[in-house]
Amino acid sequence: MTATDVERRAQRADVERAAMARALEIAQLGPRGVNPQVGAVVLSPDGEVLSEGWHRGAGTPHAEVDALSRLAPGAARGATAVVTLEPCNHTGRTGPCAVALIEAGVARVVYAVADPGDHSSGGADRLRAAGVEVESGVGAIEATALLDSWLEVQRLGRPHVTVKWAQSLDGRAAADDGTSQWITGPAAREDVHRRRALADAIVVGTGTVLADDPALTARGSDGRLLESQPVPVVVGTRRTPADAALRRHPHEPLFFDGPELRPVLDALRELGIQRVFVEGGPALASAFLREGLVDEVLAYIAPVVLGGGRLALGDIGVGTIADARRLAVTSVERLGDDLLVVARPAASKTEEGEA
Amino acid sequence: MTATDVERRAQRADVERAAMARALEIAQLGPRGVNPQVGAVVLSPDGEVLSEGWHRGAGTPHAEVDALSRLAPGAARGATAVVTLEPCNHTGRTGPCAVALIEAGVARVVYAVADPGDHSSGGADRLRAAGVEVESGVGAIEATALLDSWLEVQRLGRPHVTVKWAQSLDGRAAADDGTSQWITGPAAREDVHRRRALADAIVVGTGTVLADDPALTARGSDGRLLESQPVPVVVGTRRTPADAALRRHPHEPLFFDGPELRPVLDALRELGIQRVFVEGGPALASAFLREGLVDEVLAYIAPVVLGGGRLALGDIGVGTIADARRLAVTSVERLGDDLLVVARPAASKTEEGEA
Repeated sequence: MTATDVERRAQRADVERAAMARALEIAQLGPRGVNPQVGAVVLSPDGEVLSEGWHRGAGTPHAEVDALSRLAPGAARGATAVVTLEPCNHTGRTGPCAVALIEAGVARVVYAVADPGDHSSGGADRLRAAGVEVESGVGAIEATALLDSWLEVQRLGRPHVTVKWAQSLDGRAAADDGTSQWITGPAAREDVHRRRALADAIVVGTGTVLADDPALTARGSDGRLLESQPVPVVVGTRRTPADAALRRHPHEPLFFDGPELRPVLDALRELGIQRVFVEGGPALASAFLREGLVDEVLAYIAPVVLGGGRLALGDIGVGTIADARRLAVTSVERLGDDLLVVARPAASKTEEGEA
Repeated sequence: MTATDVERRAQRADVERAAMARALEIAQLGPRGVNPQVGAVVLSPDGEVLSEGWHRGAGTPHAEVDALSRLAPGAARGATAVVTLEPCNHTGRTGPCAVALIEAGVARVVYAVADPGDHSSGGADRLRAAGVEVESGVGAIEATALLDSWLEVQRLGRPHVTVKWAQSLDGRAAADDGTSQWITGPAAREDVHRRRALADAIVVGTGTVLADDPALTARGSDGRLLESQPVPVVVGTRRTPADAALRRHPHEPLFFDGPELRPVLDALRELGIQRVFVEGGPALASAFLREGLVDEVLAYIAPVVLGGGRLALGDIGVGTIADARRLAVTSVERLGDDLLVVARPAASKTEEGEA
């Protein structure tokens, strides 16, 4: 490699990194949904931007095809396509992007993150097999951050589920007469609202709707709505009253009969919901745990003891200690007088081989 | 005051501080029991040690009287008595020490800590009224440390009670089939043993004796007995088997029928027990909380969820949220995978005036 070659490569890397930054920017013009947010920039062999494209949601062209469609026939010959996600190898509502790129005569493809899909991955191999030069990992950190929730959904095969509950130190959700306001204090409640706003949907059982009439909005400490609002989702067979507070939510509420929760999550995924926040009550939280559909637990623990029969969790399907649902504690935080324990499912003790 | 006076006073203070250090040392020759550990040193007017005394337990002379009894009649005239606790003003199994000191002709009394007893305090006033010079607070920090548990018992009117339980995050003591070994890990168990050794008695219900056959000893991580062993105490009407492990405890076990716990604590106090460690099970821990006889809570929380009906606490007499037993969290500690929440009773939320 001559000095000129080295120089030319360095120049090309600079141009492609800039194109990737632009691709990540335009990716975010598309919706966060069942499909990933993807952007693409097509560069001429000497590094000029020929066209840009992004994905506008399920049923519309993928970013690469969108960008190619803006070019005159033959204009992409010898070009470089810079894409935030590995071009797909899958015929769905659109044909494989890898094929579209090959047919357009693209000479080089640069992408940030590999496609994790069982059906859609393999695009890079297909491109290489057709003689296209492929480079991956450019802008990977930024692209992974952008696609974080979507990649998690692909890994899990369903939306990410956080189950939150508030309890007394001894695991009660309320006193024996049902009173519970407020077990936890203002700092804990504010934290809940902040975390609600990070979710795409907030799920409650009909029992909670009837007992507490929650608004299911994410609000600041001043009571005002936060910018991002999760979609309210109600699971259960009992009817939600016509004047229920959640019917005044900025998003139209969704209703599912249950009791099976996996189909609910599948339906939410189809609607582009990637992060689900389960607020209870105890029966619904227990059902998510029982069905093994929990990725994160948030236990807000108030420094009170209550005794009695109103438990924050009911039957989670554990009969003997070896079957205990073990958690790994991610963090323990003091929120005012309360504690927040954040945990995720861990290997069972038996699996760890501990006696 | 002349320069010589100042010098003389400084010399006297040095001598009295040294005498107090000695008094604290010999105080510890007496037993830790229902009466405080007290030491006394009698100094001649020119600062020489005339005699020493300490209290050897209920029914024996108090420290000052013990020290005076070692002197020839009249030998204490004009002397200084240095005592770790304010001389008593109470006729019990012995006469008031204040009177004994006055009658012996003692001219000056130096003591470390005031007597907090309703019946026994007032000795300093009585001495002053008889023309004796009185100074207090010399060696107060060391004396308070020595008398810590005893002073707490005087304040509470009963032994100090720590209630400990181990629970899953959701407040269960065991899985539905009763299995629970081990909810918490080795670091938590070691911490329990270390804290057991700080107590004078370890209290369990008969249910726990029958279910778990605990040894009720304080052991190190190597299984060996720690130096200090609490007296095992069993509360309940069911019979403890002849071959129960706790019958092999280094101390003779004590048995109480219950169900009232206050008389149990009163009896333990009479035996000189100042710090009680309640180990459960759930019924006994709940009863202590219900009766308002808990000064410290230790909740060892394992990062597991269990659901089901085996609760770490049962009925603690709370029917509605306003009556919740509020705690103030002293510390939250991570012990291996587990958490230890240390808390003490706090004012109720209603009392705090919070809405």
